[in-house]
Amino acid sequence: MVKLILVRHGQSEWNEKNLFTGWVDCRLSEVGEKEAHRAGELLSEAGLQVDILYTSKLSRAIQTANIALSSADQLYVPVKRSWRLNERHYGDLQGKDKAETLELYGKEKFQTWRRSFDVPPPVIADSSKFSQAGDVRYNDVDPAVLPKTESLKLVIDRLLPYWQDEIAKDLLDGKTVLVAAHGNSLRALVKHLDKISDADIAGLNIPTGIPLVYELDEKLQPIKPAYYLDPEAAAAGAAAVAAQGTKK
Amino acid sequence: MVKLILVRHGQSEWNEKNLFTGWVDCRLSEVGEKEAHRAGELLSEAGLQVDILYTSKLSRAIQTANIALSSADQLYVPVKRSWRLNERHYGDLQGKDKAETLELYGKEKFQTWRRSFDVPPPVIADSSKFSQAGDVRYNDVDPAVLPKTESLKLVIDRLLPYWQDEIAKDLLDGKTVLVAAHGNSLRALVKHLDKISDADIAGLNIPTGIPLVYELDEKLQPIKPAYYLDPEAAAAGAAAVAAQGTKK
Repeated sequence: MVKLILVRHGQSEWNEKNLFTGWVDCRLSEVGEKEAHRAGELLSEAGLQVDILYTSKLSRAIQTANIALSSADQLYVPVKRSWRLNERHYGDLQGKDKAETLELYGKEKFQTWRRSFDVPPPVIADSSKFSQAGDVRYNDVDPAVLPKTESLKLVIDRLLPYWQDEIAKDLLDGKTVLVAAHGNSLRALVKHLDKISDADIAGLNIPTGIPLVYELDEKLQPIKPAYYLDPEAAAAGAAAVAAQGTKK
Repeated sequence: MVKLILVRHGQSEWNEKNLFTGWVDCRLSEVGEKEAHRAGELLSEAGLQVDILYTSKLSRAIQTANIALSSADQLYVPVKRSWRLNERHYGDLQGKDKAETLELYGKEKFQTWRRSFDVPPPVIADSSKFSQAGDVRYNDVDPAVLPKTESLKLVIDRLLPYWQDEIAKDLLDGKTVLVAAHGNSLRALVKHLDKISDADIAGLNIPTGIPLVYELDEKLQPIKPAYYLDPEAAAAGAAAVAAQGTKK
Protein backbone atom coordinates (compact mmCIF):
# COMPACT_ATOMS: atom_id res chain seq x y z
CA MET A 1 0.00 0.00 0.00
CA VAL A 2 1.29 3.45 -0.93
CA LYS A 3 0.03 6.89 -0.03
CA LEU A 4 -0.73 9.78 -2.33
CA ILE A 5 -1.51 13.08 -0.62
CA LEU A 6 -3.15 15.89 -2.57
CA VAL A 7 -3.29 19.46 -1.33
CA ARG A 8 -4.97 22.36 -3.05
CA HIS A 9 -3.23 25.71 -2.48
CA GLY A 10 -4.72 28.01 0.13
CA GLN A 11 -6.58 31.22 -0.65
CA SER A 12 -4.72 33.45 -3.09
CA GLU A 13 -4.80 37.22 -3.44
CA TRP A 14 -7.01 36.76 -6.47
CA ASN A 15 -9.37 34.23 -4.88
CA GLU A 16 -9.87 36.88 -2.24
CA LYS A 17 -10.71 39.44 -4.92
CA ASN A 18 -12.99 36.92 -6.71
CA LEU A 19 -11.05 37.10 -10.01
CA PHE A 20 -10.52 34.27 -12.51
CA THR A 21 -6.87 33.33 -12.04
CA GLY A 22 -5.89 30.28 -14.10
CA TRP A 23 -2.22 30.59 -15.04
CA VAL A 24 -1.80 34.14 -13.71
CA ASP A 25 0.88 33.86 -11.03
CA CYS A 26 -0.71 35.52 -8.00
CA ARG A 27 0.48 34.84 -4.45
CA LEU A 28 -1.20 33.37 -1.40
CA SER A 29 -3.17 35.78 0.76
CA GLU A 30 -2.48 35.85 4.50
CA VAL A 31 -5.41 33.48 4.94
CA GLY A 32 -3.84 31.18 2.35
CA GLU A 33 -0.53 31.18 4.21
CA LYS A 34 -2.33 30.17 7.38
CA GLU A 35 -4.14 27.38 5.53
CA ALA A 36 -0.80 26.10 4.23
CA HIS A 37 0.65 26.15 7.73
CA ARG A 38 -2.35 24.19 9.00
CA ALA A 39 -1.91 21.67 6.15
CA GLY A 40 1.59 20.96 7.44
CA GLU A 41 0.32 20.51 10.99
CA LEU A 42 -2.26 18.03 9.71
CA LEU A 43 0.48 16.04 7.95
CA SER A 44 2.48 15.97 11.20
CA GLU A 45 -0.49 15.02 13.36
CA ALA A 46 -1.27 12.16 10.96
CA GLY A 47 2.35 11.00 11.15
CA LEU A 48 2.74 11.28 7.38
CA GLN A 49 6.33 11.29 6.13
CA VAL A 50 6.58 12.59 2.57
CA ASP A 51 9.17 11.00 0.26
CA ILE A 52 8.72 13.30 -2.71
CA LEU A 53 6.86 16.51 -3.47
CA TYR A 54 5.29 17.49 -6.77
CA THR A 55 4.17 21.04 -7.48
CA SER A 56 2.88 23.04 -10.42
CA LYS A 57 4.98 25.93 -11.76
CA LEU A 58 2.73 28.48 -10.06
CA SER A 59 3.85 30.37 -6.96
CA ARG A 60 0.68 29.80 -4.92
CA ALA A 61 1.06 26.01 -5.07
CA ILE A 62 4.81 26.22 -4.39
CA GLN A 63 4.25 28.58 -1.44
CA THR A 64 1.65 26.18 -0.06
CA ALA A 65 4.08 23.27 -0.29
CA ASN A 66 7.00 25.26 1.16
CA ILE A 67 4.96 26.50 4.13
CA ALA A 68 3.31 23.12 4.77
CA LEU A 69 6.59 21.20 4.64
CA SER A 70 8.21 23.80 6.86
CA SER A 71 5.48 23.44 9.47
CA ALA A 72 5.71 19.63 9.15
CA ASP A 73 9.53 19.91 9.55
CA GLN A 74 10.07 18.10 6.24
CA LEU A 75 11.68 20.83 4.16
CA TYR A 76 14.32 18.37 2.94
CA VAL A 77 12.06 16.32 0.68
CA PRO A 78 13.01 16.16 -3.00
CA VAL A 79 10.86 18.30 -5.31
CA LYS A 80 9.67 18.05 -8.90
CA ARG A 81 7.70 20.78 -10.64
CA SER A 82 5.71 20.72 -13.86
CA TRP A 83 3.40 22.99 -15.84
CA ARG A 84 1.28 19.86 -16.30
CA LEU A 85 0.11 20.30 -12.69
CA ASN A 86 -0.85 23.94 -13.27
CA GLU A 87 -4.38 25.22 -12.74
CA ARG A 88 -6.75 25.07 -15.70
CA HIS A 89 -5.90 27.84 -18.16
CA TYR A 90 -8.95 30.09 -18.06
CA GLY A 91 -8.31 31.63 -21.47
CA ASP A 92 -9.66 35.11 -21.93
CA LEU A 93 -11.46 34.99 -18.57
CA GLN A 94 -8.10 35.29 -16.77
CA GLY A 95 -7.98 38.53 -14.84
CA LYS A 96 -11.76 39.06 -15.02
CA ASP A 97 -14.03 39.47 -12.00
CA LYS A 98 -16.19 36.38 -11.46
CA ALA A 99 -19.36 38.24 -10.46
CA GLU A 100 -19.00 40.70 -13.38
CA THR A 101 -18.41 37.83 -15.79
CA LEU A 102 -21.56 36.18 -14.47
CA GLU A 103 -23.58 39.37 -15.06
CA LEU A 104 -22.03 40.07 -18.46
CA TYR A 105 -22.42 36.62 -20.01
CA GLY A 106 -25.33 35.22 -18.00
CA LYS A 107 -25.54 32.23 -15.73
CA GLU A 108 -25.61 29.64 -18.51
CA LYS A 109 -22.37 30.61 -20.24
CA PHE A 110 -20.71 31.30 -16.89
CA GLN A 111 -21.58 27.87 -15.52
CA THR A 112 -20.63 26.22 -18.82
CA TRP A 113 -17.16 27.75 -18.73
CA ARG A 114 -16.69 27.00 -15.05
CA ARG A 115 -18.18 23.54 -14.91
CA SER A 116 -18.69 21.94 -18.32
CA PHE A 117 -16.37 19.06 -19.03
CA ASP A 118 -15.19 19.99 -22.48
CA VAL A 119 -16.13 23.58 -23.34
CA PRO A 120 -13.13 25.90 -22.88
CA PRO A 121 -13.55 29.68 -22.45
CA PRO A 122 -12.46 31.93 -25.35
CA VAL A 123 -8.72 31.80 -26.17
CA ILE A 124 -6.52 34.48 -24.59
CA ALA A 125 -4.52 36.72 -26.95
CA ASP A 126 -0.72 36.65 -26.58
CA SER A 127 -0.90 40.43 -26.25
CA SER A 128 -3.16 40.26 -23.18
CA LYS A 129 -1.48 41.30 -19.96
CA PHE A 130 -2.89 38.12 -18.45
CA SER A 131 -1.32 35.86 -21.10
CA GLN A 132 1.70 33.67 -20.24
CA ALA A 133 3.24 33.92 -23.71
CA GLY A 134 6.99 34.44 -23.25
CA ASP A 135 6.97 33.68 -19.50
CA VAL A 136 10.51 32.45 -18.69
CA ARG A 137 9.19 29.77 -16.34
CA TYR A 138 8.00 27.82 -19.39
CA ASN A 139 11.27 28.22 -21.32
CA ASP A 140 11.87 24.46 -21.07
CA VAL A 141 8.49 23.62 -22.64
CA ASP A 142 7.66 23.44 -26.36
CA PRO A 143 5.55 26.59 -26.87
CA ALA A 144 3.26 24.59 -29.19
CA VAL A 145 2.03 22.54 -26.23
CA LEU A 146 1.32 25.43 -23.85
CA PRO A 147 -2.43 26.14 -23.62
CA LYS A 148 -4.18 29.45 -24.27
CA THR A 149 -7.44 28.18 -22.83
CA GLU A 150 -8.56 24.86 -21.39
CA SER A 151 -11.60 22.81 -20.49
CA LEU A 152 -11.32 20.25 -17.69
CA LYS A 153 -10.98 17.63 -20.42
CA LEU A 154 -7.92 19.39 -21.80
CA VAL A 155 -6.46 19.57 -18.28
CA ILE A 156 -6.85 15.81 -17.96
CA ASP A 157 -5.25 15.31 -21.39
CA ARG A 158 -2.10 17.24 -20.40
CA LEU A 159 -1.97 16.00 -16.80
CA LEU A 160 -2.29 12.24 -17.31
CA PRO A 161 1.02 11.79 -19.21
CA TYR A 162 2.81 13.37 -16.23
CA TRP A 163 0.89 11.22 -13.78
CA GLN A 164 1.83 8.10 -15.71
CA ASP A 165 5.48 8.95 -16.42
CA GLU A 166 6.47 10.57 -13.12
CA ILE A 167 4.06 10.45 -10.18
CA ALA A 168 2.82 6.90 -10.75
CA LYS A 169 6.43 5.71 -11.06
CA ASP A 170 7.34 7.12 -7.65
CA LEU A 171 4.23 5.54 -6.12
CA LEU A 172 5.10 2.19 -7.71
CA ASP A 173 8.55 2.58 -6.11
CA GLY A 174 6.75 2.68 -2.75
CA LYS A 175 7.18 6.40 -2.14
CA THR A 176 4.70 8.57 -0.24
CA VAL A 177 3.93 11.36 -2.70
CA LEU A 178 2.63 14.85 -1.92
CA VAL A 179 1.09 16.82 -4.80
CA ALA A 180 0.57 20.56 -4.19
CA ALA A 181 -1.57 21.92 -6.99
CA HIS A 182 -4.86 23.55 -7.93
CA GLY A 183 -8.62 23.10 -7.89
CA ASN A 184 -8.88 21.84 -11.45
CA SER A 185 -5.62 19.91 -11.83
CA LEU A 186 -6.53 18.04 -8.63
CA ARG A 187 -10.11 17.46 -9.85
CA ALA A 188 -8.57 15.93 -12.98
CA LEU A 189 -6.46 13.60 -10.86
CA VAL A 190 -9.35 12.68 -8.55
CA LYS A 191 -11.57 11.98 -11.58
CA HIS A 192 -8.94 9.57 -12.89
CA LEU A 193 -8.33 7.85 -9.54
CA ASP A 194 -11.97 7.53 -8.52
CA LYS A 195 -13.26 6.86 -12.06
CA ILE A 196 -15.76 9.71 -11.83
CA SER A 197 -17.89 10.21 -14.96
CA ASP A 198 -17.63 13.29 -17.18
CA ALA A 199 -21.06 14.35 -15.92
CA ASP A 200 -20.46 13.82 -12.22
CA ILE A 201 -17.10 15.61 -11.96
CA ALA A 202 -18.90 18.99 -12.24
CA GLY A 203 -20.27 18.46 -8.73
CA LEU A 204 -16.91 17.75 -7.11
CA ASN A 205 -15.37 20.60 -5.13
CA ILE A 206 -11.96 20.26 -3.49
CA PRO A 207 -11.44 22.47 -0.44
CA THR A 208 -8.24 24.51 -0.07
CA GLY A 209 -5.38 23.63 2.25
CA ILE A 210 -6.66 20.31 3.58
CA PRO A 211 -4.59 17.24 2.66
CA LEU A 212 -6.60 14.52 0.87
CA VAL A 213 -5.07 11.07 1.32
CA TYR A 214 -5.34 8.16 -1.11
CA GLU A 215 -4.22 4.70 -0.09
CA LEU A 216 -3.43 2.81 -3.28
CA ASP A 217 -2.71 -0.85 -4.04
CA GLU A 218 0.07 -2.13 -6.28
CA LYS A 219 -2.07 -1.33 -9.34
CA LEU A 220 -2.53 2.22 -8.02
CA GLN A 221 -6.23 1.56 -7.33
CA PRO A 222 -7.69 3.11 -4.14
CA ILE A 223 -8.13 0.40 -1.50
CA LYS A 224 -10.68 2.58 0.29
CA PRO A 225 -12.29 5.99 -0.27
CA ALA A 226 -9.82 8.86 -0.08
CA TYR A 227 -10.08 10.86 3.14
CA TYR A 228 -9.37 14.42 4.23
CA LEU A 229 -7.12 14.88 7.26
CA ASP A 230 -9.70 17.32 8.68
CA PRO A 231 -13.08 16.09 7.40
CA GLU A 232 -15.20 18.78 9.05
CA ALA A 233 -13.10 21.63 7.70
CA ALA A 234 -13.06 19.89 4.31
CA ALA A 235 -16.86 19.75 4.11
CA ALA A 236 -17.15 23.43 5.00
CA GLY A 237 -14.39 24.29 2.52
CA ALA A 238 -15.99 22.37 -0.35
CA ALA A 239 -19.28 24.19 0.24
CA ALA A 240 -17.45 27.53 0.14
CA VAL A 241 -15.82 26.62 -3.19
CA ALA A 242 -19.19 25.60 -4.64
CA ALA A 243 -20.61 29.01 -3.72
CA GLN A 244 -17.84 30.92 -5.56
CA GLY A 245 -18.90 33.33 -8.26
CA THR A 246 -22.31 33.87 -6.71
CA LYS A 247 -21.12 36.49 -4.27
CA LYS A 248 -20.50 40.10 -5.24
CA MET B 1 29.77 32.43 -20.27
CA VAL B 2 27.62 30.89 -17.55
CA LYS B 3 26.81 32.10 -14.07
CA LEU B 4 27.09 30.23 -10.81
CA ILE B 5 25.62 31.97 -7.77
CA LEU B 6 26.51 30.82 -4.28
CA VAL B 7 24.59 31.87 -1.20
CA ARG B 8 25.38 30.92 2.37
CA HIS B 9 22.31 30.56 4.58
CA GLY B 10 21.46 33.45 6.87
CA GLN B 11 21.90 33.41 10.64
CA SER B 12 20.42 30.32 12.26
CA GLU B 13 19.00 29.90 15.75
CA TRP B 14 22.21 28.13 16.69
CA ASN B 15 24.57 30.68 15.11
CA GLU B 16 22.76 33.16 17.30
CA LYS B 17 23.42 31.00 20.36
CA ASN B 18 27.07 30.48 19.29
CA LEU B 19 26.76 26.65 19.15
CA PHE B 20 28.55 24.28 16.77
CA THR B 21 25.82 23.18 14.38
CA GLY B 22 27.17 21.03 11.55
CA TRP B 23 24.47 18.57 10.51
CA VAL B 24 22.06 19.45 13.33
CA ASP B 25 18.93 20.74 11.59
CA CYS B 26 18.26 24.07 13.26
CA ARG B 27 16.18 26.80 11.62
CA LEU B 28 16.93 30.33 10.51
CA SER B 29 16.61 33.03 13.15
CA GLU B 30 14.51 36.11 12.36
CA VAL B 31 17.73 37.85 11.36
CA GLY B 32 18.48 34.93 9.03
CA GLU B 33 15.06 35.19 7.39
CA LYS B 34 15.67 38.86 6.73
CA GLU B 35 19.08 38.09 5.24
CA ALA B 36 17.46 35.53 2.92
CA HIS B 37 14.86 38.06 1.84
CA ARG B 38 17.62 40.56 1.09
CA ALA B 39 19.50 37.92 -0.91
CA GLY B 40 16.46 37.60 -3.17
CA GLU B 41 16.24 41.36 -3.60
CA LEU B 42 19.92 41.42 -4.59
CA LEU B 43 19.27 38.73 -7.23
CA SER B 44 16.36 40.80 -8.59
CA GLU B 45 18.31 44.06 -8.59
CA ALA B 46 21.13 42.37 -10.49
CA GLY B 47 18.63 41.01 -13.02
CA LEU B 48 19.72 37.43 -12.36
CA GLN B 49 17.33 34.76 -13.61
CA VAL B 50 18.00 31.39 -11.98
CA ASP B 51 17.52 28.26 -14.12
CA ILE B 52 18.11 25.68 -11.40
CA LEU B 53 18.51 25.68 -7.64
CA TYR B 54 20.70 23.32 -5.61
CA THR B 55 20.36 23.02 -1.84
CA SER B 56 21.72 20.86 0.92
CA LYS B 57 19.34 18.63 2.89
CA LEU B 58 19.38 21.03 5.84
CA SER B 59 16.40 23.26 6.61
CA ARG B 60 18.36 26.49 7.06
CA ALA B 61 19.77 26.34 3.51
CA ILE B 62 16.38 25.33 2.09
CA GLN B 63 14.62 28.14 3.98
CA THR B 64 17.19 30.60 2.66
CA ALA B 65 16.57 29.45 -0.91
CA ASN B 66 12.77 29.44 -0.52
CA ILE B 67 12.68 32.93 0.97
CA ALA B 68 15.22 34.36 -1.51
CA LEU B 69 13.44 32.92 -4.55
CA SER B 70 10.11 34.11 -3.19
CA SER B 71 11.42 37.64 -2.82
CA ALA B 72 13.01 37.41 -6.29
CA ASP B 73 9.64 36.11 -7.66
CA GLN B 74 11.33 32.97 -9.00
CA LEU B 75 9.68 30.29 -6.87
CA TYR B 76 9.11 28.15 -9.96
CA VAL B 77 12.75 27.18 -10.56
CA PRO B 78 13.53 23.45 -10.52
CA VAL B 79 15.27 22.21 -7.37
CA LYS B 80 17.78 19.48 -6.55
CA ARG B 81 18.92 18.66 -3.02
CA SER B 82 21.84 16.62 -1.79
CA TRP B 83 23.52 15.73 1.50
CA ARG B 84 26.77 16.37 -0.40
CA LEU B 85 26.07 20.11 -0.08
CA ASN B 86 25.51 19.85 3.69
CA GLU B 87 27.58 21.81 6.19
CA ARG B 88 30.74 20.16 7.45
CA HIS B 89 29.88 17.48 9.98
CA TYR B 90 31.33 18.77 13.24
CA GLY B 91 31.52 15.36 14.90
CA ASP B 92 31.30 15.38 18.66
CA LEU B 93 31.46 19.19 18.75
CA GLN B 94 27.89 19.35 17.38
CA GLY B 95 25.60 20.92 19.97
CA LYS B 96 28.49 22.37 22.00
CA ASP B 97 28.95 26.05 22.81
CA LYS B 98 31.80 27.59 20.82
CA ALA B 99 33.13 29.78 23.62
CA GLU B 100 32.98 26.91 26.14
CA THR B 101 34.71 24.58 23.69
CA LEU B 102 37.43 27.19 23.27
CA GLU B 103 37.92 27.42 27.04
CA LEU B 104 37.74 23.66 27.57
CA TYR B 105 40.18 22.56 24.86
CA GLY B 106 42.30 25.69 24.47
CA LYS B 107 42.83 27.93 21.50
CA GLU B 108 45.16 25.57 19.62
CA LYS B 109 42.80 22.56 19.44
CA PHE B 110 39.83 24.84 18.89
CA GLN B 111 41.46 26.58 15.95
CA THR B 112 42.73 23.27 14.58
CA TRP B 113 39.23 21.80 14.54
CA ARG B 114 37.70 24.93 13.12
CA ARG B 115 40.33 25.86 10.59
CA SER B 116 42.81 23.08 9.88
CA PHE B 117 42.46 21.55 6.45
CA ASP B 118 42.52 17.90 7.33
CA VAL B 119 42.08 17.36 11.09
CA PRO B 120 38.47 16.39 11.89
CA PRO B 121 37.01 16.80 15.41
CA PRO B 122 36.32 13.63 17.44
CA VAL B 123 33.70 11.28 15.92
CA ILE B 124 30.13 11.66 17.21
CA ALA B 125 28.50 8.58 18.77
CA ASP B 126 25.30 7.28 17.11
CA SER B 127 23.69 7.50 20.52
CA SER B 128 24.35 11.25 20.84
CA LYS B 129 21.24 13.39 20.61
CA PHE B 130 23.14 15.49 18.08
CA SER B 131 23.91 12.50 15.81
CA GLN B 132 22.07 12.08 12.48
CA ALA B 133 22.13 8.27 12.61
CA GLY B 134 18.70 7.07 11.49
CA ASP B 135 17.51 10.48 10.25
CA VAL B 136 14.87 9.75 7.58
CA ARG B 137 16.13 12.55 5.35
CA TYR B 138 19.16 10.38 4.53
CA ASN B 139 17.14 7.21 3.86
CA ASP B 140 18.18 7.31 0.21
CA VAL B 141 21.89 7.39 1.07
CA ASP B 142 24.13 4.39 1.80
CA PRO B 143 24.70 4.73 5.58
CA ALA B 144 28.34 3.70 5.06
CA VAL B 145 29.01 6.97 3.24
CA LEU B 146 27.39 9.31 5.77
CA PRO B 147 30.01 11.12 7.87
CA LYS B 148 30.27 11.14 11.68
CA THR B 149 32.87 13.90 11.63
CA GLU B 150 34.61 15.82 8.87
CA SER B 151 37.59 18.01 8.13
CA LEU B 152 37.33 20.52 5.28
CA LYS B 153 39.30 18.02 3.20
CA LEU B 154 36.62 15.39 3.76
CA VAL B 155 33.94 17.92 2.78
CA ILE B 156 35.75 18.52 -0.50
CA ASP B 157 36.04 14.77 -1.07
CA ARG B 158 32.29 14.24 -0.76
CA LEU B 159 31.26 17.46 -2.48
CA LEU B 160 33.33 17.29 -5.67
CA PRO B 161 31.63 14.19 -7.12
CA TYR B 162 28.30 16.02 -6.87
CA TRP B 163 29.79 19.15 -8.41
CA GLN B 164 31.15 17.13 -11.30
CA ASP B 165 28.13 14.88 -11.90
CA GLU B 166 25.30 17.37 -11.35
CA ILE B 167 26.10 21.06 -10.94
CA ALA B 168 28.87 21.22 -13.56
CA LYS B 169 26.59 19.44 -16.04
CA ASP B 170 23.87 22.07 -15.65
CA LEU B 171 26.46 24.84 -16.06
CA LEU B 172 27.83 23.18 -19.18
CA ASP B 173 24.24 23.12 -20.48
CA GLY B 174 24.31 26.92 -20.17
CA LYS B 175 22.10 27.14 -17.09
CA THR B 176 22.38 29.83 -14.42
CA VAL B 177 22.80 27.83 -11.21
CA LEU B 178 22.03 28.96 -7.66
CA VAL B 179 23.58 26.94 -4.81
CA ALA B 180 22.15 27.56 -1.33
CA ALA B 181 24.42 25.90 1.18
CA HIS B 182 26.76 26.41 4.14
CA GLY B 183 29.97 28.08 5.24
CA ASN B 184 32.16 25.04 4.75
CA SER B 185 30.52 23.38 1.76
CA LEU B 186 30.77 26.72 -0.04
CA ARG B 187 34.40 27.19 1.07
CA ALA B 188 35.06 23.76 -0.44
CA LEU B 189 33.52 24.85 -3.73
CA VAL B 190 35.31 28.21 -3.75
CA LYS B 191 38.63 26.47 -3.01
CA HIS B 192 38.07 24.26 -6.05
CA LEU B 193 36.97 27.06 -8.37
CA ASP B 194 39.64 29.57 -7.33
CA LYS B 195 42.38 26.96 -6.87
CA ILE B 196 43.09 28.13 -3.33
CA SER B 197 45.85 26.22 -1.53
CA ASP B 198 45.22 23.97 1.47
CA ALA B 199 47.02 26.54 3.63
CA ASP B 200 45.27 29.64 2.34
CA ILE B 201 41.70 28.35 2.56
CA ALA B 202 41.80 28.75 6.36
CA GLY B 203 41.72 32.51 5.92
CA LEU B 204 38.65 32.56 3.66
CA ASN B 205 35.37 33.58 5.30
CA ILE B 206 32.11 33.60 3.38
CA PRO B 207 29.50 36.04 4.69
CA THR B 208 25.90 34.92 5.17
CA GLY B 209 23.02 35.81 2.86
CA ILE B 210 24.95 37.70 0.17
CA PRO B 211 24.98 36.10 -3.28
CA LEU B 212 28.49 35.46 -4.64
CA VAL B 213 28.57 35.35 -8.45
CA TYR B 214 31.03 33.38 -10.58
CA GLU B 215 31.20 33.95 -14.31
CA LEU B 216 32.67 30.81 -15.85
CA ASP B 217 33.97 29.96 -19.31
CA GLU B 218 33.19 26.78 -21.26
CA LYS B 219 35.80 24.92 -19.20
CA LEU B 220 34.13 26.17 -16.01
CA GLN B 221 37.09 28.41 -15.21
CA PRO B 222 36.32 31.86 -13.71
CA ILE B 223 36.77 34.52 -16.39
CA LYS B 224 37.18 37.16 -13.67
CA PRO B 225 37.22 37.21 -9.86
CA ALA B 226 33.92 36.21 -8.30
CA TYR B 227 31.98 39.16 -6.89
CA TYR B 228 29.42 39.67 -4.13
CA LEU B 229 26.18 41.42 -5.09
CA ASP B 230 26.63 43.71 -2.06
CA PRO B 231 30.42 44.07 -1.62
CA GLU B 232 30.28 46.37 1.42
CA ALA B 233 27.92 44.12 3.37
CA ALA B 234 30.00 41.12 2.29
CA ALA B 235 33.21 42.58 3.72
CA ALA B 236 31.51 43.36 7.02
CA GLY B 237 29.91 39.90 7.08
CA ALA B 238 33.19 38.09 6.41
CA ALA B 239 34.82 39.96 9.30
CA ALA B 240 31.95 38.95 11.58
CA VAL B 241 32.37 35.29 10.60
CA ALA B 242 36.13 35.47 11.26
CA ALA B 243 35.45 36.77 14.78
CA GLN B 244 33.13 33.87 15.66
CA GLY B 245 34.05 31.75 18.65
CA THR B 246 35.97 34.59 20.28
CA LYS B 247 32.90 36.20 21.76
CA LYS B 248 31.23 34.88 24.91
